Amino acid sequence: MSSSKLRVGLIGASGETGTSIVNGLLEANKFDLIALTRPSSLTKPINKALESRGISLRPFDLTSPQPDLVASLKDLDVLISSLPPHDLLSPIPLITAAKTAGIKRFLPCAYAPVIPPGGIHIIIDQKEKVYQHMKQLRLPFTIVDIGWWFQLCVPRLPSGRSDYVQLTPSQNTIVGEGDTKSALTDLRDIGRYIARIIVDERTLNKYVFVYNELWTQNEMFALTEKLFGEKMERKFVQEGELRAKLEGVGDVVDLPTIATKVPVQYQLSLYVRGDNQPENAKYLGYLLGKDLYPDFEARSFEAYVKEVAGGKAKGIYEGRYEDLKKLFVKNK
Amino acid sequence: MSSSKLRVGLIGASGETGTSIVNGLLEANKFDLIALTRPSSLTKPINKALESRGISLRPFDLTSPQPDLVASLKDLDVLISSLPPHDLLSPIPLITAAKTAGIKRFLPCAYAPVIPPGGIHIIIDQKEKVYQHMKQLRLPFTIVDIGWWFQLCVPRLPSGRSDYVQLTPSQNTIVGEGDTKSALTDLRDIGRYIARIIVDERTLNKYVFVYNELWTQNEMFALTEKLFGEKMERKFVQEGELRAKLEGVGDVVDLPTIATKVPVQYQLSLYVRGDNQPENAKYLGYLLGKDLYPDFEARSFEAYVKEVAGGKAKGIYEGRYEDLKKLFVKNK
Repeated sequence: MSSSKLRVGLIGASGETGTSIVNGLLEANKFDLIALTRPSSLTKPINKALESRGISLRPFDLTSPQPDLVASLKDLDVLISSLPPHDLLSPIPLITAAKTAGIKRFLPCAYAPVIPPGGIHIIIDQKEKVYQHMKQLRLPFTIVDIGWWFQLCVPRLPSGRSDYVQLTPSQNTIVGEGDTKSALTDLRDIGRYIARIIVDERTLNKYVFVYNELWTQNEMFALTEKLFGEKMERKFVQEGELRAKLEGVGDVVDLPTIATKVPVQYQLSLYVRGDNQPENAKYLGYLLGKDLYPDFEARSFEAYVKEVAGGKAKGIYEGRYEDLKKLFVKNK
Repeated sequence: MSSSKLRVGLIGASGETGTSIVNGLLEANKFDLIALTRPSSLTKPINKALESRGISLRPFDLTSPQPDLVASLKDLDVLISSLPPHDLLSPIPLITAAKTAGIKRFLPCAYAPVIPPGGIHIIIDQKEKVYQHMKQLRLPFTIVDIGWWFQLCVPRLPSGRSDYVQLTPSQNTIVGEGDTKSALTDLRDIGRYIARIIVDERTLNKYVFVYNELWTQNEMFALTEKLFGEKMERKFVQEGELRAKLEGVGDVVDLPTIATKVPVQYQLSLYVRGDNQPENAKYLGYLLGKDLYPDFEARSFEAYVKEVAGGKAKGIYEGRYEDLKKLFVKNK
C-alpha cells in the first residue's frame, strides 16, 4: 500500500452498512483502510476476513480515555462511523477525540432516509445530537444519507419465497394509499457512493443525499408480484392506526422503545409525510448524489427483486440483533 | 403602490430589528409592506407612524385560530417575523398558518450571532425549535443571522458619556484576553440586507450570514477610548467565572432564566468559543452576505462610535422590556 493513499479509519466495519463501505472503498482501490475494532473482537472470523482483504485491524475501544482515543486516530485522514441504531450517542467522545487528532473529514453514522429532526423519528433525533456536538467542535464532516434500503422493500409472499429477506413486519404493509414516492438505495451501493464522496471537496462540511431510484409502495408490491409470478393480498394501514401505536410510548432510548417507535415512525415519515424524497432533501440543504455523480452506475430495484426471486439475495442483519428482531415481531 | 410589488408582511415591525427592517424595505422602494399588528395596538403612535409612512396596518393576533391566521396571511408573498427574546416559540402556529396560506418565503426570527444549537445558548435553542417546525412543514424560508450589533459594543466610560447606549453590564467587560474576533453589524443595516435577501433566489431555503466588520473586544475598547479621548479601566472576566454564573440555572425559558443565561452565554459563545465568525458560518452551511452582495455599503463601527461620542446615537430598547433590563443589572 502506498503511503500517499488517503488513510480511512472505519468504526463498525463488520456491520451491514460497514460491510458495504468496506466493499466500496476496497473496490475503489485508492484508500488505506484501518478497521478500528474492539480488542475482544480482533480475532473474530469476521475481522480476520477483513484482514485477509488487506484491511489493517487496530484495537479500539470507544470507552477508552480521550488520550488513548486520540492516539488511535492521529494518523488517519478520514474517519467513518457506522453504528447500530441503539448505540447512537456513543460517538460523542469519539468526535471530541477526532477533533483533537486532526481528522480531516468525519462521516458520522447517518445513512438514513431524509427526515428532519425534531420529534418525527427517535433515531434521527439521536443522530442530530451527535451532529450538534460535531458542529460545536467544528470537526470537518460529511453527512451521507441514503434513503431506504432495497433490502427492506420486498414484501412477504404467500409461497414464503421472500421470507428469507424479511426483517420487520412493517415491510409487508402498505401505508395510506401506497402512492407516496420514497428514495431507495441498494445497501451494496452505499460504499461505492462513499468512495466518491470522501475524495470530493464539494461535499466537505455538507449534507449529501444519495439514492438509486424513487418507488411507491404500490409499485414495489406490483413489481414483486410480477417478478415472482405470485399474487398477494394487500394489507393496508392508515395514519391513525400508526399514531395509535405510538401513544403512551416514552422517549427513553432503550431497545423496547426503539423496537416500537422505529418501524412506525419510519412508516409515518416515509409514506405519510413523504419526507424521503430528493426535493425535500434539497429543501433541507442536501447536495444530491444524482447531481454530483451523474455517471454513477446504481443498481436497480428490479435487479434486486430478481435476485430475491432467484433465491440468491442476502438477508440483512443475519445472526445480529436477535433481541431487537424479536421485539419487532412482537410489536407487529 | 403597484400591485406587481412583492407583498411583505411584518410581525414585530415596531421592535428594534423590526424598525430596521421597515426602514430598509421602505428605502428599497419596491415592496408593499403590511404590518401585522395586535388589534389592541393598532392605534398606538408607533403604529400610526408606520401607517403615515405608507405601511398598511392589519389586525393580527398570533393566538387566533388557524383559519383566522391563514386568512390574514393569504395575500402575502413574504412573511418576516421579529420577536422579543422571551417570546420565541409563539410563531409555531404562525408557521403552520403560513404554510397553509402559501407564503413563498418566511423569515423566522433569527437575526442572531452565529451559534450552533445544542446547549450553547438558550435563545438559539428556542429558535432551533421554530426552525425545526418550519422545516418539517417544508415552508420556504431564509434564515438571516447578523452577528452582534454595533449598538451593544460601546463600553461604559468614566465620564458617563456612553451610558445612554448601555443595555447590559456584560458589554463593559472583556472576556479572556479580549482578542477573539466577532462579526458586528449596525442594527440599522439589517433591513437593508434583508431588502436584498428577500428578492434573491440564491437565498431561498438557505441560511445567510450578513455582517459589517470583524472586531475584537480589545479593538472595540481601544477605538472607544480614542474617539472619546478618555481612558478607562479594563475589567476582565475569565471563562471559569462565566461558567460559575450558569451553575444551577435551570432550562425553563422564563424571564429570570433568560436574564441570567443570555448575556453570559453570549459572552462564552462570542469570545470564548469564537462562534460568531464568518469561517464558522460557512462551516455551518451559511451563505455569506460579503459573497452575495460585495457592493453593499455597510456602516463602519468607527462611524457608529463617533456618533455615540457625538451624543447623537440612539439607545436601544428605549422604554421596552424594562423588567428584563432590571434583571440584567441585578445579575451584573
